[in-house]
Amino acid sequence: MGPAATADFMQKLVAATPAERESDYTPIVVWSNPGIPDRTRALLGLGPSPVPAMLDGIVRLRGAGADVIAIPCNTAHAYLPALQAAIDVEILNMVELATAEAAAFRPDVRRVGILSTAGTRLTGLYASACRARDVIPLELDADQQAQLSDRAIALVKTGRDLPRAERLILEAATLLRDRGAEVVIAGCTEIPLVSGRADAIVPVIDATACLAKAAIGRVRHGTAGGARSTERVQLSTLKEGVL
Amino acid sequence: MGPAATADFMQKLVAATPAERESDYTPIVVWSNPGIPDRTRALLGLGPSPVPAMLDGIVRLRGAGADVIAIPCNTAHAYLPALQAAIDVEILNMVELATAEAAAFRPDVRRVGILSTAGTRLTGLYASACRARDVIPLELDADQQAQLSDRAIALVKTGRDLPRAERLILEAATLLRDRGAEVVIAGCTEIPLVSGRADAIVPVIDATACLAKAAIGRVRHGTAGGARSTERVQLSTLKEGVL
Repeated sequence: MGPAATADFMQKLVAATPAERESDYTPIVVWSNPGIPDRTRALLGLGPSPVPAMLDGIVRLRGAGADVIAIPCNTAHAYLPALQAAIDVEILNMVELATAEAAAFRPDVRRVGILSTAGTRLTGLYASACRARDVIPLELDADQQAQLSDRAIALVKTGRDLPRAERLILEAATLLRDRGAEVVIAGCTEIPLVSGRADAIVPVIDATACLAKAAIGRVRHGTAGGARSTERVQLSTLKEGVL
Repeated sequence: MGPAATADFMQKLVAATPAERESDYTPIVVWSNPGIPDRTRALLGLGPSPVPAMLDGIVRLRGAGADVIAIPCNTAHAYLPALQAAIDVEILNMVELATAEAAAFRPDVRRVGILSTAGTRLTGLYASACRARDVIPLELDADQQAQLSDRAIALVKTGRDLPRAERLILEAATLLRDRGAEVVIAGCTEIPLVSGRADAIVPVIDATACLAKAAIGRVRHGTAGGARSTERVQLSTLKEGVL
């Protein structure tokens, strides 16, 4: 996955932890493998499946002691059922977590904008999650997706021209707001790195931060914020893994 | 070690990597264990040794595939000989790397200021490394250490009042500059998180960034920047570990 997004996720894990001293933090093991096949290309039928490499990562994290798995890549969540079926450790679902937070942002939220990769858009991960919560998903059209969101994500992945990426995300969020979105989900982990200006014109729900809060909640209190059942996993130690 | 500093190190690894695409980055495995006994307390004779927990971490990193170990905690480097003797994978030496960069900052550098934990100060790690390069180390006196550096580090470790931590580090760097320091080493991985204002009045050498550059150099080109021999390790795969 994109290592800048992984570092951002790690910072959000730290920020989500109430700490009086260093030892109050949670042990974290991270397996950052930029060689995992591109998720969007796989979903578009243009490249190999990322599932074997992701399973390899989860096995390494499990071997290092992880009790809860967080995957800070929204697009990878298209493969969550396949991954979850293959392993005995819970994988948190950031798409569900972020959608729940967006739908509950205000009591009257009706329309939720979604910024994501082309792969996530294609699978309708967020659109389905929105409809399940009786809110209307608003996504970019194909041209806007390519010109705005995909370009911004590519710039962040290579650390290039972040101000330009920030302008592209601002433009995309403005389009969604003008179509009626009351909140916008930053549904690709590269996007929160450049969504500051967008957040000034429409509230941006940071899926990475939602995942971090849930991961810390799970290891500290045995709960991931109510977004899914807490019954499946017994936490034997306070550790979490990051793919 | 402090997880905020570890996340900062991970970001600096990303920043130190020239990348055209996601797959150009280096696989990274991180074992962030805030339960490692406090290094300064151990060095002051007030707490247990961190060596067993650090060795456990290195073994986990090795098990996950790490070929080069980086420990983004300067104080922990007091134990580097003990750790290195116990394992067959190279541990990069951030104290040597940062001191080399400080001494070479300009051809005429004579006095190098050092900001660190009380434990690092006590062991003279940086002072010895400076003298070995024929530059004069300038450290805070005991009162300044407690009032400025130690307080700032504690604030960063718990994520509290970072503006105050930044003022404390600015004051400490100013004291060292006024005593003749031409550059100042941020020789504790919490300090670069709050050394921005200090860097405006005297060049601050970021030991975390030095370690990140060396780690990326080692996995990409088999060199850690000349700060130590490259002969000891054969890199079988492009991976590095972070303790």
